[in-house]
Amino acid sequence: MTNYVFGVDIGGTTIKTGLFDAGGELVEKWEIPTDTSDSGSNIIGDIAASIKRKMTEKGISKDSVGGIGMGVPGPVLESGKVLGCVNLGWGEINAAALLSEATGLKVKSGNDANVAALGEMWRGGGMGYSNMVMVTLGTGVGGGIVLGRKILYGSHGAGGEIGHAVINPNETEQCTCKNRGCLEQYCAAAGIVRTAENILSESDAPSVLRGIKLDPKVIFDAAKAGDAAGLETVEIFADRLGRFLANISAVIDPQIFVIGGGISKAGGILTDSLQKYYKKYAFHASKNTKFSLAVLGNDAGIYGGAMLILN
Amino acid sequence: MTNYVFGVDIGGTTIKTGLFDAGGELVEKWEIPTDTSDSGSNIIGDIAASIKRKMTEKGISKDSVGGIGMGVPGPVLESGKVLGCVNLGWGEINAAALLSEATGLKVKSGNDANVAALGEMWRGGGMGYSNMVMVTLGTGVGGGIVLGRKILYGSHGAGGEIGHAVINPNETEQCTCKNRGCLEQYCAAAGIVRTAENILSESDAPSVLRGIKLDPKVIFDAAKAGDAAGLETVEIFADRLGRFLANISAVIDPQIFVIGGGISKAGGILTDSLQKYYKKYAFHASKNTKFSLAVLGNDAGIYGGAMLILN
Repeated sequence: MTNYVFGVDIGGTTIKTGLFDAGGELVEKWEIPTDTSDSGSNIIGDIAASIKRKMTEKGISKDSVGGIGMGVPGPVLESGKVLGCVNLGWGEINAAALLSEATGLKVKSGNDANVAALGEMWRGGGMGYSNMVMVTLGTGVGGGIVLGRKILYGSHGAGGEIGHAVINPNETEQCTCKNRGCLEQYCAAAGIVRTAENILSESDAPSVLRGIKLDPKVIFDAAKAGDAAGLETVEIFADRLGRFLANISAVIDPQIFVIGGGISKAGGILTDSLQKYYKKYAFHASKNTKFSLAVLGNDAGIYGGAMLILN
Repeated sequence: MTNYVFGVDIGGTTIKTGLFDAGGELVEKWEIPTDTSDSGSNIIGDIAASIKRKMTEKGISKDSVGGIGMGVPGPVLESGKVLGCVNLGWGEINAAALLSEATGLKVKSGNDANVAALGEMWRGGGMGYSNMVMVTLGTGVGGGIVLGRKILYGSHGAGGEIGHAVINPNETEQCTCKNRGCLEQYCAAAGIVRTAENILSESDAPSVLRGIKLDPKVIFDAAKAGDAAGLETVEIFADRLGRFLANISAVIDPQIFVIGGGISKAGGILTDSLQKYYKKYAFHASKNTKFSLAVLGNDAGIYGGAMLILN
């Protein structure tokens, strides 16, 4: 009988783990450091040891644990096969099978962004919906897709890799992925800053953004305060991303877009501006797709891991 | 016990029906005219009568029929609710429920492009794959998506409506959908002809395309024969469509793209040129996604209908 499940979110610095009861309530969460030495070969053993310690501490028997759901920072196939994780030092391994062997528990896994999306669907910004796209805006642009309450893994583990859709074939600068003109080059933090710099350099109009170190927070704050350069930056950003979200709807037509990541702390101005341009470009049937902000923050991954088992 | 299933493909002019055995072999196919008078209110009754006649003719009992799968030329939700079909005169109706009532048989339905995609996956260009995108190139650009051997309906019945993704926000001309810059404006027949006309008007270079009525067939034929204007038209077309297919992969990462519709008669030059640009723009994990040509032609819809029941 399942009384508990574990959700694990492997990051490049720390591994977050959550113990959940069968009703999906978080009982306890904790972190261990990610040991990336020796090509990350200690990671699975460290996770297994951490989970076994917690089971001993709480007097939890193996029979009462439904399993472990795990998010991995790289492409993952539905079979559990990880196609390599640069951040962890992993090549191709079946991390789920290894963790299952080390713990004697059922293990399911997925790409971390997709698992986080599942968490937000279950207990976060997508609660009540079964078909959603989560967009994570930070140093990169990530995506996670949930259809019919299941993660869309993709045939090559690339489901939801929306940051690397090419939105400008005329771009001359290279993206980190080696292509040119990816969504991420314009809509992640550095791209938003570059847009603002270009606007500021085109005129001498006064702006609170002049003479300070630019980042997405100060730019969105300036826009909220009515600063013209800040507002223009937000409009250009929202036009680009809102248009691509409309194109996503022309493919999979989700019920809701959930916006997360550090930049999403900008709040309502972000979803309002995205929705405005989304509506402009979306096919008529999909014009009223919902928008919301992510709410689970760094816990989305462990919630999604638990959901992988409880689903 | 299921010995037979029916596949129905409702078009604006004719309704195609196929009788399949339980092994999925086509036993017989036939057509009846589509009666669009009186807001299409006779269509369901006509289909029911046609199927009952065939059952009587063949001595097929109701118990031996697994059901009817039906493609409808408009947005369809998984519940069977049709959100309106301009071509048929239909408003919002549950066509599947009405046909089930009229025949006493189980009925499943889907958008015609999605049902045709299911047929191509089952017995056509996508055979052996379970995650595919079908692109139909003709007077419009249609799309059908199959994930895990199931149709992706979309939350508003717009799953696979790829022809109305906006690829050029600077377009001034309106698409039939009222938006501006849709994929269909460039990659359907009229858009391909316009591209060739622009190329021909930009120089006096000799071309077999001068002084003749242009259509996609003569343009692709000219390209195959080495005509410079024909080749350039095909390159521009393939750059635009191949780039959008790469963006589809950044969302759902399918195993294969199957290219159908009248323009697909151009054959290998079409898939080769699309694949060339696809590879240029695709995220590294998805660069080797397969391309093939559709093979079932006008029968894809009835095969897909049968598959809806046998799946």
